[in-house]
Amino acid sequence: MKVAVYRKEHFNAAHRLFNPHWDKEKNDAVFGKCNNLNYHGHNYELVIKVTGEINPETGYVIDLKYLSELIKSQILDRFDHKNLNLDTEEFKNLNPTAENIAVVIYDILRPLLQKQYALKVRLYETERNFVEYPVD
Amino acid sequence: MKVAVYRKEHFNAAHRLFNPHWDKEKNDAVFGKCNNLNYHGHNYELVIKVTGEINPETGYVIDLKYLSELIKSQILDRFDHKNLNLDTEEFKNLNPTAENIAVVIYDILRPLLQKQYALKVRLYETERNFVEYPVD
Amino acid sequence: MKVAVYRKEHFNAAHRLFNPHWDKEKNDAVFGKCNNLNYHGHNYELVIKVTGEINPETGYVIDLKYLSELIKSQILDRFDHKNLNLDTEEFKNLNPTAENIAVVIYDILRPLLQKQYALKVRLYETERNFVEYPVD
Amino acid sequence: MKVAVYRKEHFNAAHRLFNPHWDKEKNDAVFGKCNNLNYHGHNYELVIKVTGEINPETGYVIDLKYLSELIKSQILDRFDHKNLNLDTEEFKNLNPTAENIAVVIYDILRPLLQKQYALKVRLYETERNFVEYPVD
Amino acid sequence: MKVAVYRKEHFNAAHRLFNPHWDKEKNDAVFGKCNNLNYHGHNYELVIKVTGEINPETGYVIDLKYLSELIKSQILDRFDHKNLNLDTEEFKNLNPTAENIAVVIYDILRPLLQKQYALKVRLYETERNFVEYPVD
Amino acid sequence: MKVAVYRKEHFNAAHRLFNPHWDKEKNDAVFGKCNNLNYHGHNYELVIKVTGEINPETGYVIDLKYLSELIKSQILDRFDHKNLNLDTEEFKNLNPTAENIAVVIYDILRPLLQKQYALKVRLYETERNFVEYPVD
Repeated sequence: MKVAVYRKEHFNAAHRLFNPHWDKEKNDAVFGKCNNLNYHGHNYELVIKVTGEINPETGYVIDLKYLSELIKSQILDRFDHKNLNLDTEEFKNLNPTAENIAVVIYDILRPLLQKQYALKVRLYETERNFVEYPVD
Repeated sequence: MKVAVYRKEHFNAAHRLFNPHWDKEKNDAVFGKCNNLNYHGHNYELVIKVTGEINPETGYVIDLKYLSELIKSQILDRFDHKNLNLDTEEFKNLNPTAENIAVVIYDILRPLLQKQYALKVRLYETERNFVEYPVD
Repeated sequence: MKVAVYRKEHFNAAHRLFNPHWDKEKNDAVFGKCNNLNYHGHNYELVIKVTGEINPETGYVIDLKYLSELIKSQILDRFDHKNLNLDTEEFKNLNPTAENIAVVIYDILRPLLQKQYALKVRLYETERNFVEYPVD
Repeated sequence: MKVAVYRKEHFNAAHRLFNPHWDKEKNDAVFGKCNNLNYHGHNYELVIKVTGEINPETGYVIDLKYLSELIKSQILDRFDHKNLNLDTEEFKNLNPTAENIAVVIYDILRPLLQKQYALKVRLYETERNFVEYPVD
Repeated sequence: MKVAVYRKEHFNAAHRLFNPHWDKEKNDAVFGKCNNLNYHGHNYELVIKVTGEINPETGYVIDLKYLSELIKSQILDRFDHKNLNLDTEEFKNLNPTAENIAVVIYDILRPLLQKQYALKVRLYETERNFVEYPVD
Repeated sequence: MKVAVYRKEHFNAAHRLFNPHWDKEKNDAVFGKCNNLNYHGHNYELVIKVTGEINPETGYVIDLKYLSELIKSQILDRFDHKNLNLDTEEFKNLNPTAENIAVVIYDILRPLLQKQYALKVRLYETERNFVEYPVD
């Protein structure tokens, strides 16, 4: 009896989108105002989905309090109130698009969850722009 | 031409999470304040997803007014403004976690929908904690 | 490394649900007040999901600014502040249910997206009634 | 001990904004696409605020179930799934802007509430456009 | 230069509405299913508004982190995951309507805030039912 | 017949909170992680409230399309996708707290609106932290 459980968290961060191998003109053409030299920022809403069997003794797939603390210690402490380009190892050489952030979050959490769980990451950069990884 | 249609409803209920085969210490360790002896409660948001072919005569997969009335008569009348542990048959011997509530709702509605429809239940216990059953 | 990206837009439109081959009694029985002769209306929320590989040069699956402009020029300019039954070619002979609107939007956008992208349409007619096409 | 209580309801309606004493050019200039000849529509969210003393026997300012039924019988039954311009007496000769709809709703409800209650109407035409009447 | 600042928090609690001086019939007539003997519950959303002068050294009216911690220690620790009727001193002899809960929260917080601040409490019992105290 | 009308817009920006006359220890003590040297950021939601008489010829207090364009040209073009500390004149010497941003926005818009209109600014820094200026 597999059920999916979701936990929603958020963090606030600054970022700038650009490709260091391109000149300013090309970066402006591709990334527009997201290439602002001095950064801009977002309230990121993060939804972590974990799928697994219900444990008959607890009625839980996974303790959402545990999952919330895992997200806090592994993701929020790393990215909240940070400049993704300057303050994090993960995006020193990786463009911090929503797509790449979602993949990075997945790659951090995946090894920390037991194998019987499936994991999916949804990340809202704004209410109107969001991404999901992996896809079914 | 299969389309998924969703109907969102809500109910308010009290519950307490615990395993009657465990002592107080273990229940507190696992369920924390959710094990409060005198119950606590939630505004549950319930999203029912029904997937099927569009009926070419109506343009509907299923009449959402009918689906809403089915949810009301079968689920809301049963659980709304109730104590899940004390007032319902379903959770007399089943821990009313969000996971178990979603499975119970599915098991109630599934036999009442025609076989050509696929059914999925999403249940929000809070805005930040929610579950889905079954999984793809 | 496939990621799904979503862009949310909205439009406001009037519509009336009915089957022109049925008499008033049958239309009233099936469509109720949605069959109001003089139309009623909605704020439609439209979520377009595009799935594809991350482009390693941009970190994007697809430029969401481009996707937003495509939705605006192809869907919003066509349906926003319109009477779906009277002002559009698409629903002259097709009942403008949420299901049918979602399929029509998919059929407009699909040929305009490159083949490597998968496309899915979610349409909210109200906060409580919404549909998705195609299904997995 | 005065407290304000709020009840939120919604209705869906079609409308068209125009001034019958103006020609098409002036109406188009002022009302733009809201002047679409065949109407467009909205999901209106209505929030009714009633201010009064807490009744010490009930702990209520006013029974919100009673208030909800009053809104349903007086406002929703009148405007829901209607064309405001064609189907209602109130807007036969009054432009159905959000401002005017809010005043009309106030004028309908005010005489039906006891004098000790203060009344305020908030009306959302969209998530981004809303109005309030009266002002403090 | 007075500015109002708001902090939103939430808690989950069970309650039952009734007047102990009335018999069951009268309580059922007035409180309906809210009088369920075994309680029901809600996710309460609490918005605390503090109005005061901007401190020119910090740019803050009040440190929202401090305000959040005050709400947590004084309100959430008291009411979260509790049965308001059974587990709290405040509602042993006071009907836990939204109106009364808002007044109680105000009366707890008011003496803990410096006099130069004005305080207002908004409490959502559900998305559709909410209250505010005091009124302007 | 005075009515208040509201228009909601948003912008995304980076900022850092600190007082240049204080040393790092004091800034860290007061502003915590909001003092991150390399900035962080937010999706700011901005609600502009304009109060005035309904124009009987239009049914409008003010054309919300005009108001929206005014906000875009005066506020969004200035602050969207910017670093408030580095890229704007307004916050070169003013700590960009939500309180100060709201006052700055008011001071920009006030002279651009005719005197018969009252103006109020609400600014959401996050869903849980927001401010309003001026106060009644």
